[in-house]
Amino acid sequence: MSLGSDSAKAERMFRLMDGFLKNDSISLQQDILRHVEYTVARSRFNFDDFEAYQALAHSVRDRLIERSHDTQLYFKRKDPKRVYFLSFEYLMGRSLSNSVINLGIRDQYADALSQLGFEFEVLAEQEGDAALGNGGLARLSACQMDSMATLDYPAWGYGLRYEYGLFRQVILDGFQHEQPDFWLNFGNPWETERVHVTYPVKFYGVVEEENLNGEKCNVWIPGEVVEAVAYDNPIPGYGTRNTITLRLWAGKPSDQHDMEAYNTGDYINAVVCRQKAENISSVLYPDDRSFQGKELRLKQQYFFVSASIQDIIRRFKEAHSNFDEFPEKVALQLNDTHPSLAIAEVMRVLVDKEHLGWNKAWDIACKIFSFTIHAVIAEGLEKIPVDLLGSLLPRHLQIIYEINFKFVEELKKRIGLDYNRLSRMSIIEEGAVKSIRMANLAIVCSHTVNGVSKVHSELLKAKLFKDFYELWPQKFQCKTNGVTQRRWIVVSNPSLCALISKWLGTEAWIRDVDLLTGLRAYAADPDLQQEWMMVKKVNKMRLAEYIEAMSGVKVSLDAMFDVQTKRIHEYKRQLLNILGIIHRYDCIKNMEKSQRSKVVPRVCIIGGKAAPGYEIAKKIIKLCHAVAEKINNDTDVGDLLKLHISTAGHEASGTGSMKFLMNGCLLLATEDGSTVEIVEEIGADNLIDDV
Amino acid sequence: MSLGSDSAKAERMFRLMDGFLKNDSISLQQDILRHVEYTVARSRFNFDDFEAYQALAHSVRDRLIERSHDTQLYFKRKDPKRVYFLSFEYLMGRSLSNSVINLGIRDQYADALSQLGFEFEVLAEQEGDAALGNGGLARLSACQMDSMATLDYPAWGYGLRYEYGLFRQVILDGFQHEQPDFWLNFGNPWETERVHVTYPVKFYGVVEEENLNGEKCNVWIPGEVVEAVAYDNPIPGYGTRNTITLRLWAGKPSDQHDMEAYNTGDYINAVVCRQKAENISSVLYPDDRSFQGKELRLKQQYFFVSASIQDIIRRFKEAHSNFDEFPEKVALQLNDTHPSLAIAEVMRVLVDKEHLGWNKAWDIACKIFSFTIHAVIAEGLEKIPVDLLGSLLPRHLQIIYEINFKFVEELKKRIGLDYNRLSRMSIIEEGAVKSIRMANLAIVCSHTVNGVSKVHSELLKAKLFKDFYELWPQKFQCKTNGVTQRRWIVVSNPSLCALISKWLGTEAWIRDVDLLTGLRAYAADPDLQQEWMMVKKVNKMRLAEYIEAMSGVKVSLDAMFDVQTKRIHEYKRQLLNILGIIHRYDCIKNMEKSQRSKVVPRVCIIGGKAAPGYEIAKKIIKLCHAVAEKINNDTDVGDLLKLHISTAGHEASGTGSMKFLMNGCLLLATEDGSTVEIVEEIGADNLIDDV
Repeated sequence: MSLGSDSAKAERMFRLMDGFLKNDSISLQQDILRHVEYTVARSRFNFDDFEAYQALAHSVRDRLIERSHDTQLYFKRKDPKRVYFLSFEYLMGRSLSNSVINLGIRDQYADALSQLGFEFEVLAEQEGDAALGNGGLARLSACQMDSMATLDYPAWGYGLRYEYGLFRQVILDGFQHEQPDFWLNFGNPWETERVHVTYPVKFYGVVEEENLNGEKCNVWIPGEVVEAVAYDNPIPGYGTRNTITLRLWAGKPSDQHDMEAYNTGDYINAVVCRQKAENISSVLYPDDRSFQGKELRLKQQYFFVSASIQDIIRRFKEAHSNFDEFPEKVALQLNDTHPSLAIAEVMRVLVDKEHLGWNKAWDIACKIFSFTIHAVIAEGLEKIPVDLLGSLLPRHLQIIYEINFKFVEELKKRIGLDYNRLSRMSIIEEGAVKSIRMANLAIVCSHTVNGVSKVHSELLKAKLFKDFYELWPQKFQCKTNGVTQRRWIVVSNPSLCALISKWLGTEAWIRDVDLLTGLRAYAADPDLQQEWMMVKKVNKMRLAEYIEAMSGVKVSLDAMFDVQTKRIHEYKRQLLNILGIIHRYDCIKNMEKSQRSKVVPRVCIIGGKAAPGYEIAKKIIKLCHAVAEKINNDTDVGDLLKLHISTAGHEASGTGSMKFLMNGCLLLATEDGSTVEIVEEIGADNLIDDV
Repeated sequence: MSLGSDSAKAERMFRLMDGFLKNDSISLQQDILRHVEYTVARSRFNFDDFEAYQALAHSVRDRLIERSHDTQLYFKRKDPKRVYFLSFEYLMGRSLSNSVINLGIRDQYADALSQLGFEFEVLAEQEGDAALGNGGLARLSACQMDSMATLDYPAWGYGLRYEYGLFRQVILDGFQHEQPDFWLNFGNPWETERVHVTYPVKFYGVVEEENLNGEKCNVWIPGEVVEAVAYDNPIPGYGTRNTITLRLWAGKPSDQHDMEAYNTGDYINAVVCRQKAENISSVLYPDDRSFQGKELRLKQQYFFVSASIQDIIRRFKEAHSNFDEFPEKVALQLNDTHPSLAIAEVMRVLVDKEHLGWNKAWDIACKIFSFTIHAVIAEGLEKIPVDLLGSLLPRHLQIIYEINFKFVEELKKRIGLDYNRLSRMSIIEEGAVKSIRMANLAIVCSHTVNGVSKVHSELLKAKLFKDFYELWPQKFQCKTNGVTQRRWIVVSNPSLCALISKWLGTEAWIRDVDLLTGLRAYAADPDLQQEWMMVKKVNKMRLAEYIEAMSGVKVSLDAMFDVQTKRIHEYKRQLLNILGIIHRYDCIKNMEKSQRSKVVPRVCIIGGKAAPGYEIAKKIIKLCHAVAEKINNDTDVGDLLKLHISTAGHEASGTGSMKFLMNGCLLLATEDGSTVEIVEEIGADNLIDDV
């Protein structure tokens, strides 16, 4: 800051910047209208609901920024151990309602807006989804950020700023069509571009050996360099000023690039090619399983990992002159294998750049990494062909080989020459396509490994990673990954929220989910049960209205709602579901009138997206629509069976959240791994999820 | 606006939005610091000069927006004839200083900043160039906007929002290297994205005939559609509240696009391909002459034209129910031939979409278009191969053929069957590559055609368009296109500005350049002359410092500064200049000492960029550097001759503006075409420009 020597000037400046934004009606109104005029740049007599939303969002952003600055300043002074959450996907959805509720100023905003003739809910509806993820894993990442902020963790989230989120599903004649989701079309008021926070990320090239003070040293000469720039998204905690940052990386044109390298002549073409490299972060892969062996995907993974590690190390070095304290100040949580190149990258930086020596570097790496596994079956495990990795990241391939060599040597001492087992546990998979097993790499390095639910964790120990569990039982843990009650009850189901607070006599459960167990005392209370049923009924009514608006099909409120919303996939067994529905339909058709009167009327609801290249899943969607067409138009069956195929919004496809909302069921996890389940009879069958 | 029925609420809102931002020191400081904290999102204790500049710029933007809204509202009510300036390039350079001077609050800002310990000039230096143009034509467009705003015109400028401006020149070992200029890297506080102002632009496809109420009608079925989105840049006038808009179009991902059309399977690749189409506006062609026959260039031209015409017609239709008044409300100025597809596009819209009938449409077109020619030689005239146009814009090719057919028929009646002349004047050029002569199209349709200086206009009449001049002498005019005194004296040369105001006893010349003739009365006054020489001397000193900083060469202030800064091109004759310098060097070397003492010491300065693909021009640059190396290191010659090769900033390459600044010469045009020239002896040889 060029303050000059005059401290009076500095004082004058700090005085002018002192104080926080006020949250009384007049202040909120002034702030919103200022943003209408100057930020959205609409004339005072001519702005629509969307522009009012933008102005409203910017006024909330101002308040988030205040807290975010204070949080950063606080942690900078305290220098605690920071937790870095590395996830390739975040399904944030909408931020407005969640933010004002966490900030505790939802009602103030609603009042302020209503005095101006606006309704908060109407403006909130203007917000688009930030769908930077495929499903459950990504929504859990978003909820994790919310929880870490609420629990006052000094946490950072790192991810990629995809310009195209998960594709939009459009159904034409029963078939799924995909539309690209350029979610930034109308701007994103929540993010701040940090133009000065940029790092070069290297690709391709060769590794050369050099001499450094008599020691051999590997130097990676890259063939391509892409710049990463940070976009910061503040994540406010509930009932605290702690506001942490989700930092997303985007590719950025590099200033320093010399077009001459392309033998110009066709300068335009050179720039366009260059742009393509910079677009590295632009598209989210629309499938969480079938991207294996795609070069762009691997580039995205390393781009994300390299920028994040550079950022983390820069922050550490600001306060520390060597790496001795690194494991006391840095914890890296790998959300699935997607970011697990971070292990090789940390080794590369510590060994090649910081010259720590292999053993010291490996000791540090083993102390800082933890790993969350999401896979259920072996087919879901990520593998990277050795040839691909060697071409894109030659030095990392060397490092992974070295890690594996030392690991296998150690293993031989422990288990002897059991080659079957050695080959199962090796990080390198031999075979037609020699590959890196990313999960094995992550398990070998991490000090803790967790599944995402009790049943899933047991499965990992007993099947998927039995060998590793036997070797390192202490590494394996269970941390149930759940969705937060802030978003999925308070924001999404205000009636249920009011009911819970009333019966518990406190809102403290919004911060501490374990308090929900207090409801058990009243579980048999007929008043609670009746109120609970009313909440469900009202929500069911809203859903019935929605179904009629979407598909024109009237459904009975007395019917059982039977819901399956999630990615369409063979292993998720929507096909079994639809065959069951056909069978049910067939049974009803063959029933006597007297038998029919005993059938519980049912509304089946199926929703979800199929990966664009997944033919069978797309055929299942078509089948569902064909069956719905038949059943819904059969007046003979009437209310006894209806089938609604929902083209669900982004968020609703994450972790069965739609069913969760509708049925008022709670399946919530606390941060320490304990789980609170309040399961109701209706729809309980739908709670059997894949995790 | 969803105001509800309660007018009290609306009143409350308008009251809160009433009033303008204040320009006293405290208000300016508060505004700047608010932007530091909430817009730039920097903590109050940690921001640098660049971030202070951003905040400062945003506070100026707020004030521009107020005036811009008032201007739009005023003209919307008055509905005057609007002038639309269509230019493919605008070399705006930096906006901050120009804006605060035009707003009349430069000194207030300087005071406010100084109380906080900042210097206005230092922050202003942080701004990057908006280099959306190649040279003179583009800088003149920018000055034209400034003048139209100052003269209270209801004007709009239209152009393209290139993401990559003119490449940056880097010299390595005397050779030019090009770096892409991603000028938006650090944001652009001056623009507002108008997310709702978007238009589809069509390409390729076929034309089909349809029947409409018994009439034949042409329907264009496009093969590709790209969305254009508007970015508005406010241009404030000097000494007036009139603030007009430069609206630049950018390609934008379309929400409506169905990826299925690509037979997905490889969804990612489909999105990446799609992105390429949307990048249509991303790169400025780095050459104003050699782009002929490039498809992307033609796409850019039509993209620009189509979006602009749709916008203009939408605005007209808001206040008018038919096209009778169109020529009384709309004037379209074509800046060179680049936007001349607008003629075919207006015809297409009026005939195919509005069904006006050919003759009525043509009558309207001939009343609304005016055309500024910049070409000097026949080789500089733009031609579009018929095959290329027919493939990209099939309907426009038909329309141009139809225009030409009717024109040639008419021409035959006037001049008989003089086939040589007919073929010269035809819009279609026959030959190996059958092409459209865009200048001929523009001349045939426009009601006025102007050259950009007296000598240039005479050249057009006598040579380049002699045939047309003989046919339509009344169309041909001269409008000297100059640079404005606001930017090029007031902003760039404050000492000269002060001198002029002092001698004229008024600042009125800043608005009305003709008042400069008042200086003639004092031309012989020794005091004026001495002061004038002092201003020059001080500026020369600044330049000498700059040269030393850039190249390490010390130059004598007593030397004559001999400057040629402009695009490096054979027809600009830098080669002649450098041969002259070699000759001068040779002469000096061969002189006796006594002869040498009679030589006027000279500092030659050459600066400019060569188009990346223009080999000879790039060799000229290398030659210049080699000669400079030789001369500057020859102590025997010493101060008698120095050669500085400047890697000039963007703006400085426009219209010899660097020489203009240094020599304190004025070559200014007023809007009515009269020219004021105050030419000094030193450097006068450099005033011979190509126009």
